[in-house]
Amino acid sequence: MISKKFKDMCNTPSVIRALAGYANERGKEIGYGNVFDYTLGNPSVPVPEEFNKAIRDLTTELSSSALHGYSPNPGNPEARSIIADSLKRRFGIPYEQKHIFMTSAAASAIAHAVRCVTEPGDEVITFAPYFPEYNPYINQSGAVLKVVPANTEDFQINFDAFEQMMNKKVQAVLINTPNNPSGIAYSSATLKKLADFLYAKQEEYGHEIFLISDEPYREIVFKGADAPYVSCFYDNTLSCYSYSKSLSIPGERIGYVAVNPKAKDADMIVPMCVQISRGIGHNCPSSIIQMAAARCVDLTSDLSVYETNMNILYDEFVKLGFTVVKPGGTFYIFPKALEDDAVAFCEKAKKYDLIFVPSDSFGVPGYFRAAYCIDTEKVQRSLPVLEKFVKEEYGK
Amino acid sequence: MISKKFKDMCNTPSVIRALAGYANERGKEIGYGNVFDYTLGNPSVPVPEEFNKAIRDLTTELSSSALHGYSPNPGNPEARSIIADSLKRRFGIPYEQKHIFMTSAAASAIAHAVRCVTEPGDEVITFAPYFPEYNPYINQSGAVLKVVPANTEDFQINFDAFEQMMNKKVQAVLINTPNNPSGIAYSSATLKKLADFLYAKQEEYGHEIFLISDEPYREIVFKGADAPYVSCFYDNTLSCYSYSKSLSIPGERIGYVAVNPKAKDADMIVPMCVQISRGIGHNCPSSIIQMAAARCVDLTSDLSVYETNMNILYDEFVKLGFTVVKPGGTFYIFPKALEDDAVAFCEKAKKYDLIFVPSDSFGVPGYFRAAYCIDTEKVQRSLPVLEKFVKEEYGK
Repeated sequence: MISKKFKDMCNTPSVIRALAGYANERGKEIGYGNVFDYTLGNPSVPVPEEFNKAIRDLTTELSSSALHGYSPNPGNPEARSIIADSLKRRFGIPYEQKHIFMTSAAASAIAHAVRCVTEPGDEVITFAPYFPEYNPYINQSGAVLKVVPANTEDFQINFDAFEQMMNKKVQAVLINTPNNPSGIAYSSATLKKLADFLYAKQEEYGHEIFLISDEPYREIVFKGADAPYVSCFYDNTLSCYSYSKSLSIPGERIGYVAVNPKAKDADMIVPMCVQISRGIGHNCPSSIIQMAAARCVDLTSDLSVYETNMNILYDEFVKLGFTVVKPGGTFYIFPKALEDDAVAFCEKAKKYDLIFVPSDSFGVPGYFRAAYCIDTEKVQRSLPVLEKFVKEEYGK
Repeated sequence: MISKKFKDMCNTPSVIRALAGYANERGKEIGYGNVFDYTLGNPSVPVPEEFNKAIRDLTTELSSSALHGYSPNPGNPEARSIIADSLKRRFGIPYEQKHIFMTSAAASAIAHAVRCVTEPGDEVITFAPYFPEYNPYINQSGAVLKVVPANTEDFQINFDAFEQMMNKKVQAVLINTPNNPSGIAYSSATLKKLADFLYAKQEEYGHEIFLISDEPYREIVFKGADAPYVSCFYDNTLSCYSYSKSLSIPGERIGYVAVNPKAKDADMIVPMCVQISRGIGHNCPSSIIQMAAARCVDLTSDLSVYETNMNILYDEFVKLGFTVVKPGGTFYIFPKALEDDAVAFCEKAKKYDLIFVPSDSFGVPGYFRAAYCIDTEKVQRSLPVLEKFVKEEYGK
């Protein structure tokens, strides 16, 4: 019999996807170059040529079975070792191969991590603004996602609200830094305070509380930003990484879970991920993609365009009188809308072919997200349009 | 807090993996060429060169974003169309793009299919002998796997036992033909009888019963075997395919769900799979692998070695007095052990460096599986060892 739950879910399409669809349709009418589509977080810079070369080389260097045969369940051993070594070298945490579980990017990493450290009915806390896909990611595991209201001052953590929501049923805290949609990185002070708070609560409750750190934007950090590596602050951390944004390969679905070696049962987490894989149909990312990513472990695409675009947009938003916190990374900016109703604001912007995403689905009313992973030339061309929109609609 | 369920699962390793590990260790001692390792279903023939060429070509033909960007949620549209067209041409069922959902091979296809057509607590019936991974595949979805005892006469379906176990809670029936581990393909007569039975039960219970057809061995069919396409017999069929065995690319994790266009809510199943993906962290197979598989849609590796090996082994088992049903496909054969306790039989065989998998974990006592996806030369060399084993241990 057809599952009612999943059938019903089909009727609530993603706001972001709907707006992207609109932008696409509008582009067909007036030319895509004339639509200022700030909806999707799709990398706009090319993959490093080394990645494509690695793929080509692998098809000639390795035998068919070595290249295309089953990976061991936790992933390609060499890739896992290379990643562990890279993280150890860069962040000073003594990861070994056994702490790395290869995944189909961050979505899959979170799917495994949450199942490792929760039982059905347990609570997982995250902080607004947050990526709306966390709802299906967490709730379909059987755990329950709870969202702490935003600290709109600077989009660091709202600790007062967090303390009020904290309770014994919380088994995991899910953070995303640098953050989609705010663009803000959690500072060393924030992470230290978070760690101290969680250590105290572990003591008080008598059980571990795991920190699941969603880090697809880890390599996209701007000048002057304080964006430290989360796992350095708290032992019970599962770092969920994706190469989607750093190597511009979101379609290849490659990432990993890195288990802090000091975490509770650290040596068991990867074997547990293997068991979880069996039930959710994961069973490893593509073997050639694992190997190619390992060959590019310390590379990134040329990510500089994102900072260029951010600075242009940030200055423009400030000039136009928007309340906006300067992003420390990612390719998102998250200004306050010029009226309380962000949906109405974004609807008005659409009349000018400026396509922004209202903040409501990110768990904060009254803001909007602009994804500036587009050509700088287009960002520049959008500025007079933005000025016109603000002047005509809001008299500024 | 660490999940007790998944931690406990780590303590029950797979029998097959354990034996494969033993074979590997033994190979280090006496030389791998001297171990007759019949444990793993790992393709032994190389990928078609066209697949590697497709991968290389794609890295130069397409732009970075066209190649490595996000696939739409149900998978690459062109790949889906190519697969639909191929199935339509080959099997006469009018599949369209909208009926194909790209998956990370059959494990992922089954993970999606079972969630589409069951609610937690529903029953899914399968038939012994069966692939033991069906237990985590089904049970972790929230449904409950029930196993119909084998028809050891010919390893077609045991309809008497099936009828007794059938009840209103059964929402799906999961079959695997050609079958791992028996090597048997369900005949037209079997599938017709199964379809008639399910149609009658749908009527009687007043709800659909879906047939989930696991088909990784669909292209490995031997001369004279009656191995028809399952979906031709029953409308409510979800075909779960994998390229792992037909293209010898199990590490690349690529396959699909094909929804029979006459199935209940046929146009909704793929959108439902998209929703399911969000919760289990699937979010598409690798984009380059989807495209490369589509370019090889009607190709296979040179699969002839499997039939050669099967004939050699079958004749030998018959000669030595084993009870054995001749396989119609796959790269498995499933003879009756020479004593009631298949585990004891396989332990004795190990003394001769013949590594077989006892049948107990496949849901049938007293048999063993030999996976003959190995070099024919090695199969030949194993024959005198097999004769010696049988003579010395069983006086035959």
